[in-house]
Amino acid sequence: MSVDDNPDAAEAVYASLTNSVRRLVDATIRSQVDLATIASVQQKIDAAADELCAALMPGSFGLPETSDGRTLTWGNAVIGVRNAFAPPLSVHHRSDGSVWTDVTLGAAYEGPAGHVHGGVCALILDHVLGAAAHKPGHPAVTGTLSVRYEAGTPLGPVHAEAHIDRVDGVKTIVVGALATSQGISVRAEGIFFHPPAAAR
Amino acid sequence: MSVDDNPDAAEAVYASLTNSVRRLVDATIRSQVDLATIASVQQKIDAAADELCAALMPGSFGLPETSDGRTLTWGNAVIGVRNAFAPPLSVHHRSDGSVWTDVTLGAAYEGPAGHVHGGVCALILDHVLGAAAHKPGHPAVTGTLSVRYEAGTPLGPVHAEAHIDRVDGVKTIVVGALATSQGISVRAEGIFFHPPAAAR
Repeated sequence: MSVDDNPDAAEAVYASLTNSVRRLVDATIRSQVDLATIASVQQKIDAAADELCAALMPGSFGLPETSDGRTLTWGNAVIGVRNAFAPPLSVHHRSDGSVWTDVTLGAAYEGPAGHVHGGVCALILDHVLGAAAHKPGHPAVTGTLSVRYEAGTPLGPVHAEAHIDRVDGVKTIVVGALATSQGISVRAEGIFFHPPAAAR
Repeated sequence: MSVDDNPDAAEAVYASLTNSVRRLVDATIRSQVDLATIASVQQKIDAAADELCAALMPGSFGLPETSDGRTLTWGNAVIGVRNAFAPPLSVHHRSDGSVWTDVTLGAAYEGPAGHVHGGVCALILDHVLGAAAHKPGHPAVTGTLSVRYEAGTPLGPVHAEAHIDRVDGVKTIVVGALATSQGISVRAEGIFFHPPAAAR
């Protein structure tokens, strides 16, 4: 079976593998087994990676299209189901145009002790604000992103949302925020553009 | 051997494991082996993770201190040598107070096809600007971060640097930029504070 035969089935297989790799990333940070075991586990990981590397696409995943016209974002650093770096975010669109996501951020996203790295907050807000600015078939390009840190963001469940605040000529201004059970921790404003297809 | 007996030797063992996990993350994105092989490799990864999970510290890595007074940033999302999510960045300090880093960003950091995710650019700049604002024993807290995207950042070698632009009362204003061989792609300005130790 190839991806094009049945993208949904392939996606499930890849997503399952990637979830296992995410668990491994977390265990790599938090493991307290002895160093001899660490070295022995590394050999097994190298062997697993060797098997995957038997056939590798060059460069990066990109944004390939399937034969039925879907664009696969599986490699994306924030939403990619094949990217263990991505939590991954699943961004939901409301009928009023606003977007939201709920995600749990663990040890891999830490900056200050017990808290999400400020840059990870910016990474997530960049993506969520961009999703709010996105128009179907007409992707938004980020001009500027301004992030205000109002409080630390504890590791754990995080909610993010964004909506278009106003359109000013060619600029689409989007605002959003990150929140935990303790309230809003980070606010963001982004200015987005929708360049004509020929300019992209 | 425990970490406290010889942190440098332990760090080398962990760093080597984490580099193997980074290679696995990359292969998970780019592998073109058939789906049956993917499923079989997943079992091996699960077994490796199980071994590491035999003893796990709770929560996150945090910022533990060794018996000789070093603070270990091994879990950090940007610079952590035990964190496969981190490239990891190695931030260098110049005698004039400016900081810089050179890093190669591969498939795991992709947003637009062939380019670094804009949020990853913000993540790196947040960390590098914070490092420029940092005073020994007196960490900087980010107030705001403003990022201006001037061009796409192709995947591959990336250079980032930052310096203190000015100090205005309690605010330290830091500026920085991300560049590739094609020139500067992203600029950033951050406002940082140095709260008294009691307030942190």
